[in-house]
Amino acid sequence: MDILRGKRIKKSSKRAISFISSIGFDEPITRHVIKINIAHMLSLIRTGVVDERVGAKCLEFLTGLPDDIRLDPKTEDVHQMIEQEAIKAIGMQNAGYMNLGKSRNDQVATALRMECRDRILATCASLVSLQDTIVAIVRRHSETPFPGYTHLQHAQPVTLGHHFEAYFQALQRDIDRLKQAYARINKSPMGLAALAGTSIRIDRGYVSKMLGFDDLERNSIDGVSSRDFAAELLFCAVLIMTDLSRIAEELILWSSSEFGYVEVGDEYAATSSIMPQKKNPVVAETIRAKCSTSLGHLTAVCGLLKALPNSYNLDLQEVTPHLWGSLSETRESIELMTGMLSSLTFNVKRIEDSLRDDKSTATELANLLAIREGVPFRTAHAIVGKIVRDSLEKGTTLEVATERLLGETSKRASGRELKIDKGQIRNVLDVRKTLNGIRSEGGANPRLTLTELAKDRKLIGQNMNWIKESQLGLNRSDRSLSDQVRLCLRAVSS
Amino acid sequence: MDILRGKRIKKSSKRAISFISSIGFDEPITRHVIKINIAHMLSLIRTGVVDERVGAKCLEFLTGLPDDIRLDPKTEDVHQMIEQEAIKAIGMQNAGYMNLGKSRNDQVATALRMECRDRILATCASLVSLQDTIVAIVRRHSETPFPGYTHLQHAQPVTLGHHFEAYFQALQRDIDRLKQAYARINKSPMGLAALAGTSIRIDRGYVSKMLGFDDLERNSIDGVSSRDFAAELLFCAVLIMTDLSRIAEELILWSSSEFGYVEVGDEYAATSSIMPQKKNPVVAETIRAKCSTSLGHLTAVCGLLKALPNSYNLDLQEVTPHLWGSLSETRESIELMTGMLSSLTFNVKRIEDSLRDDKSTATELANLLAIREGVPFRTAHAIVGKIVRDSLEKGTTLEVATERLLGETSKRASGRELKIDKGQIRNVLDVRKTLNGIRSEGGANPRLTLTELAKDRKLIGQNMNWIKESQLGLNRSDRSLSDQVRLCLRAVSS
Amino acid sequence: MDILRGKRIKKSSKRAISFISSIGFDEPITRHVIKINIAHMLSLIRTGVVDERVGAKCLEFLTGLPDDIRLDPKTEDVHQMIEQEAIKAIGMQNAGYMNLGKSRNDQVATALRMECRDRILATCASLVSLQDTIVAIVRRHSETPFPGYTHLQHAQPVTLGHHFEAYFQALQRDIDRLKQAYARINKSPMGLAALAGTSIRIDRGYVSKMLGFDDLERNSIDGVSSRDFAAELLFCAVLIMTDLSRIAEELILWSSSEFGYVEVGDEYAATSSIMPQKKNPVVAETIRAKCSTSLGHLTAVCGLLKALPNSYNLDLQEVTPHLWGSLSETRESIELMTGMLSSLTFNVKRIEDSLRDDKSTATELANLLAIREGVPFRTAHAIVGKIVRDSLEKGTTLEVATERLLGETSKRASGRELKIDKGQIRNVLDVRKTLNGIRSEGGANPRLTLTELAKDRKLIGQNMNWIKESQLGLNRSDRSLSDQVRLCLRAVSS
Amino acid sequence: MDILRGKRIKKSSKRAISFISSIGFDEPITRHVIKINIAHMLSLIRTGVVDERVGAKCLEFLTGLPDDIRLDPKTEDVHQMIEQEAIKAIGMQNAGYMNLGKSRNDQVATALRMECRDRILATCASLVSLQDTIVAIVRRHSETPFPGYTHLQHAQPVTLGHHFEAYFQALQRDIDRLKQAYARINKSPMGLAALAGTSIRIDRGYVSKMLGFDDLERNSIDGVSSRDFAAELLFCAVLIMTDLSRIAEELILWSSSEFGYVEVGDEYAATSSIMPQKKNPVVAETIRAKCSTSLGHLTAVCGLLKALPNSYNLDLQEVTPHLWGSLSETRESIELMTGMLSSLTFNVKRIEDSLRDDKSTATELANLLAIREGVPFRTAHAIVGKIVRDSLEKGTTLEVATERLLGETSKRASGRELKIDKGQIRNVLDVRKTLNGIRSEGGANPRLTLTELAKDRKLIGQNMNWIKESQLGLNRSDRSLSDQVRLCLRAVSS
Repeated sequence: MDILRGKRIKKSSKRAISFISSIGFDEPITRHVIKINIAHMLSLIRTGVVDERVGAKCLEFLTGLPDDIRLDPKTEDVHQMIEQEAIKAIGMQNAGYMNLGKSRNDQVATALRMECRDRILATCASLVSLQDTIVAIVRRHSETPFPGYTHLQHAQPVTLGHHFEAYFQALQRDIDRLKQAYARINKSPMGLAALAGTSIRIDRGYVSKMLGFDDLERNSIDGVSSRDFAAELLFCAVLIMTDLSRIAEELILWSSSEFGYVEVGDEYAATSSIMPQKKNPVVAETIRAKCSTSLGHLTAVCGLLKALPNSYNLDLQEVTPHLWGSLSETRESIELMTGMLSSLTFNVKRIEDSLRDDKSTATELANLLAIREGVPFRTAHAIVGKIVRDSLEKGTTLEVATERLLGETSKRASGRELKIDKGQIRNVLDVRKTLNGIRSEGGANPRLTLTELAKDRKLIGQNMNWIKESQLGLNRSDRSLSDQVRLCLRAVSS
Repeated sequence: MDILRGKRIKKSSKRAISFISSIGFDEPITRHVIKINIAHMLSLIRTGVVDERVGAKCLEFLTGLPDDIRLDPKTEDVHQMIEQEAIKAIGMQNAGYMNLGKSRNDQVATALRMECRDRILATCASLVSLQDTIVAIVRRHSETPFPGYTHLQHAQPVTLGHHFEAYFQALQRDIDRLKQAYARINKSPMGLAALAGTSIRIDRGYVSKMLGFDDLERNSIDGVSSRDFAAELLFCAVLIMTDLSRIAEELILWSSSEFGYVEVGDEYAATSSIMPQKKNPVVAETIRAKCSTSLGHLTAVCGLLKALPNSYNLDLQEVTPHLWGSLSETRESIELMTGMLSSLTFNVKRIEDSLRDDKSTATELANLLAIREGVPFRTAHAIVGKIVRDSLEKGTTLEVATERLLGETSKRASGRELKIDKGQIRNVLDVRKTLNGIRSEGGANPRLTLTELAKDRKLIGQNMNWIKESQLGLNRSDRSLSDQVRLCLRAVSS
Repeated sequence: MDILRGKRIKKSSKRAISFISSIGFDEPITRHVIKINIAHMLSLIRTGVVDERVGAKCLEFLTGLPDDIRLDPKTEDVHQMIEQEAIKAIGMQNAGYMNLGKSRNDQVATALRMECRDRILATCASLVSLQDTIVAIVRRHSETPFPGYTHLQHAQPVTLGHHFEAYFQALQRDIDRLKQAYARINKSPMGLAALAGTSIRIDRGYVSKMLGFDDLERNSIDGVSSRDFAAELLFCAVLIMTDLSRIAEELILWSSSEFGYVEVGDEYAATSSIMPQKKNPVVAETIRAKCSTSLGHLTAVCGLLKALPNSYNLDLQEVTPHLWGSLSETRESIELMTGMLSSLTFNVKRIEDSLRDDKSTATELANLLAIREGVPFRTAHAIVGKIVRDSLEKGTTLEVATERLLGETSKRASGRELKIDKGQIRNVLDVRKTLNGIRSEGGANPRLTLTELAKDRKLIGQNMNWIKESQLGLNRSDRSLSDQVRLCLRAVSS
Repeated sequence: MDILRGKRIKKSSKRAISFISSIGFDEPITRHVIKINIAHMLSLIRTGVVDERVGAKCLEFLTGLPDDIRLDPKTEDVHQMIEQEAIKAIGMQNAGYMNLGKSRNDQVATALRMECRDRILATCASLVSLQDTIVAIVRRHSETPFPGYTHLQHAQPVTLGHHFEAYFQALQRDIDRLKQAYARINKSPMGLAALAGTSIRIDRGYVSKMLGFDDLERNSIDGVSSRDFAAELLFCAVLIMTDLSRIAEELILWSSSEFGYVEVGDEYAATSSIMPQKKNPVVAETIRAKCSTSLGHLTAVCGLLKALPNSYNLDLQEVTPHLWGSLSETRESIELMTGMLSSLTFNVKRIEDSLRDDKSTATELANLLAIREGVPFRTAHAIVGKIVRDSLEKGTTLEVATERLLGETSKRASGRELKIDKGQIRNVLDVRKTLNGIRSEGGANPRLTLTELAKDRKLIGQNMNWIKESQLGLNRSDRSLSDQVRLCLRAVSS
């Protein structure tokens, strides 16, 4: 603390330091802070601002630091701690130059972005795994009839595969948003210093390249103090968690004895301390709850950013625990969801039973009246609605009710007494035939699902490719940085 | 895990256990869980359900546990862990009865309430300290003129003391809300078991009294699964943090070189790693930011409770980290605010300068025209508005402008040419005289502030009394519990 | 606009006026603003500040205004509009005194509180109706067995009545919170003027009494600019909506064909434009969704209040549309929920079917082993868990499985081969007997529910009483106000 | 209502209909719904499903509807209302076919997306205007020194232009996010029907093209029930409003008499009803407050989407008022901010005064010691910190303090007594020279700002281009639709 405080202000209280310290959530950026210090020092040496022997001492110290360096909880932050350690290790005459031409403001902005990049790639990788698991379910159940719900009421038959393919689409948008956020984040603030830039001769482009960035942030005030990238990632997390919460909700519903459609693997369930018969879908419940937590994180950060005057205010530091907290929980939730989906056992029998005479093919009957019998669709809709009502009231099947009541009902509604033979009625009310009769692209027809599956697989390939390419780029810049250090140290030692 | 899972389901995965485990945030309730186990066992012995020698073994084990027992991160929660430890220590033949007639559901609901009671009392105590500090400022500055702002514009003069007394009022409402929440929380769910009550002969009233509760929760489903008390405390925290954020904002503004009204103690400030001249009010900024965090916690919990079917769902477990997190940060923020307020140095000279000809007594001039000269107030308001405008445009003082322009302006506006002599103008525009002229109760007149101060001190006394009485009640029940255990063990050993 | 702007600043743009105008949401406070103007003028006459003939003109004008006066959308707010209308009607020489000694700041704070009082009483009345409807269901179904759920799994049997009684409790806490908020709100800010009080001789106590307040707000800065009362009401609304959302969720679940427990009245359902068989519980869905809207309102207002410096800032005006919006939607939701609950038809047969061999009495079996056979409860829990597992795997009933497996399983688990005769097993697994065997107060035993019902009715009576008394108090002050006006006008005219 | 309800369920209550009706917020989508009906009918005619004379009747009716058709508040929604009107106008025998092969679910999803497109384009256009206004300020003030703040403390000098350019960057990211959202939204759900697709022969590609979409939504369940696009736009709005709130906050601060840096145009201010001297920045305050409202909308919608099971639930309808509300307020806020920025008068004299000896060039002094004198930067930082402290305590300028104390202080800190001549000290502490000495790209050097300005102008051009191209595309598809209708009607009539 002493060193950084300079001589401007007196000692802080321990309690106040602990209150304002970021050290408790600096761990994820520590390795980035070290790299930034290295790249910055290389730049100072290159431009001749710092003597190369002094610089070499710093580089030796920095490259010697372990990635998992223990953070001293009594320090204000990792930036200060590393400098203090450096001063202890290699003396003020060397370490005292490490922060020439940079500030904690650009350094922390840069380190946050570097960690965000890693988190995005990891999250996308987890999402792709989840997509993969979903594709397996889609494939396996592309022909398994399933009640399509609206308002939690049986609406029209779909397939279990088609139901899950819907989630594939949502997850793909989640990945696309993360990709776009990545591009927005991957710009280097280094060299913007505290908020105004610096008169020290540095090379922003070089530092940016060494740290794997695609471009430079363009305004020193904006570059050090904008945190919309954090809010954006938190929002991406909310949408991902929302998708997961919806799957979780369905698994909870379907695991109830009333639905009985699915059983999650024992390893994703728990029992009760008092009721020995219970098998509770606790992982799904926890994911559902954590969806709200992710919204809490977003609310906190957006509320915090509101009305902050330019440029850096310490409020921004409070963004970080929300950011890492939310991204960690999101990734963990994705991975547990992936495992849980792999563990599912569907009770196809129960599903089939629930479709039996559930009236969900009534729309097809109305369509038939409209197409074949020339009844206006709205009239046909009313006729079928009346028949459904009667079949419910009398407890007969829709098939029987149609047979019995179509003539009379249609006459009353349209003036014409319609007649359809028994076989045709059975056909049009048959779930599988209904499914196979769907024509419109994107519909629940098993044949159409196969087309979508092919596209899904292609998307998975593209997603994986993007992750791989991005990761390779980061690895390349890491290697460049090491190479440059080696060259520099060799030059000095020779 | 094994024990609790019974034989109903197979092993869970390590990862899933860690995901659904509450052990990471069970620490605050551990000592309450122990007490509950003790009180429940006493009750089982009293009703004769458990043999007193078996019960005594359990009581010995439980009372021997340290308050700060280390929680095993591999267990599902503290409830299970304590039972497991008991089984290891005193064998299934004894420990196996500990959970007869209770469930984790009523136990955790009870323990949460017990910890909430402690937190409320501690938070109120901190708030009272803050009130005390504010009262000291009010007293010291009850006569220090200060610009009263609306829209961050000088509006009318107040005193610095009166300004701070406003926060006293807000904090008193915060305390009142916490007191009312306390009464709502202080009802015992023990004996409601999992969700339906129990056939085991227990004594809910006895257990409730031993644990310091005022009353029983009345419906077993509601009692184990309602968490509105948690939401209510989180909301109380948001309002407290909002009050603190407003004081913090003002301290930040007033610390700017443009205002220059106040300097916070060095121990509540930090400097810059690059700009040696900086003194940043970082503690105030952090409090301001944490206000948003408290809102995030509330949003998360309210979002989580939405649409949960009765009764216990694991989602409820996610309430807890938000609850402890928010209450801890709130209390810490209160205490740092208290310290920071004590450390303030006001620059009374700068404050006085800012009041000089700031036109903030213009209302009094308008009042004078209305009262003494019989000009309708709205007309008087317009006349004075015009004079202010001219004085601003010409850069003269309001006094001079009034002298010069009153006649002409009033004539144009009201048809009458008003005349007020110089001395009277000076008087009516004088800040101190304006303050002393305020008549309405609750106004910024220093005399009225003294009346309020007396009331404030009385309120502080009442607040402290309530805290003390409540704490004594809890201590009494703790002693009763120990006494009962002692009696029971003595009975068995004799 | 012109008038109020005085001569200080030039004309505003139409667009800006419309942007900052509150006129769009001033309608609910209009009648209160009129009353406040009346009470304030009476006070000015009483203290002799305003000539009684001038005052009488104002009173005549004000009492002549219709409650549902049309608000001119081109004005800034209702306060200004009324003054403008008065000036037009009775001239500046009279109307120009209406705002002497008061400000929009204290006036709007007072009017908001008056409207909040009315809203609280109306909301409480709706909540009591809902409680009444629930009590009817509890009474009717106090003996109807119902699956008690945890984690949406059958846990232990309860009764349908007991399930609904849980909501009674939650609603009672909602009412209690509103009552306490009422007391906090019912203090008059009138006379605090803009932020500093006023030098004009007024009588705050008189005005407060005429407007039905219990007490005065005590600090002029706090009194005009605190809006925690609004946040508090918004929070109360969130908790009410949360309770409703939970009932709504259950109605949606129970209306599914898989549950089939209930049918909502047709008037609370809708069908589909394409699927003629659908009956969708749309009112329940809308209530569920509006629960989130209420949280949005709260978030907006809390976010808005954060870090606002003292005292009035126009930001506070944005509180109001959230406040009225949320309270209106809440009340409407309560009333629709009340209607919907009255319209329910329970399918008791389906409920009974779902309880058949659902293993939810397994806990009782474990209790029996513990109590009668002296097996430690945790061991008994494990034994029964194993039996449940086997019965599930083999598809036998729990009764049969117990008969067959108890001996062997207990021997393996506890070393003792337990034996219970068939009749006893049947008894202990019987749902109704289980219910009747529950002893602990607040449990699901129908007898215990009757005790609770009596208490519930008493609470309803107390609630209604409080509403009535509060309403009578407000009516009394309204009559006083009219009387005072009459006396005053008579005095002048004589 | 009757018609749509078919015969399945009985009449709804008026109150319930009004509660669940979307008609109050359907106005923005009405014209899109008409177009969709037209395109769908064209498709049905093309595929031969509907007789072309029947179709022509429908097309005539639909194209005859005014864009601003009055919505009947008693209907459930616009979809139903248009069908009802059609039936009244052209009889069931024609209008009865309008909804063949489509559902309200795909129709509303499509209409929402069409309106979102329009809103995005309009919002972007407003944002570009704001950027334009900012660029004008940047250009005008690219050389006006301005205090650069961190923690609201003077940190380092920047220019007023550079300060505003920071907001340009933030707004550019806002625009980029909207563009990406546009691409995600611009896919057609038409033809996905209720949730499963349809057996009716339609042409999804044709309809999509006629309505200006780039592509088709690919899964019928996802396509009708996903609303992440709405959440995404609401989030974009929050970030825009956050940017505006930050500018607003600065304008409020700078308008205070303590800062005195700026005066907003009278048309963006208001005065007080009681205090005639006030000029309040009310538009800025309202924008600041509405930032919280936008967060409230987002919270509501995200909370609402959580845990909704597939596919359409009526909860989704509640998304819409939040969406239109937030987007309207956002756009209005942008436009008022644009006007307000154009109206600003900067008080350059006050700004310059505030920079006088504000110690904000202290960093340059430290840099100088490091670069020219070879003192380690951290040591230099400490030396300068000490000098600043002394100059503050003694009330001397930094220049004088440096002259007097550098030698002694440096000796104590570094062992070397440094000496810099007076002229050099003056130079290094000079604000303008400091600015001109900044080298790093993106820094506050006026020369560098010119480079950025050129890039900004280019970006504005690109933004405008994108808006124009997108708008042209939509216009083209509108014309195609009209052409197709004309061709069809001509074919029939001939």
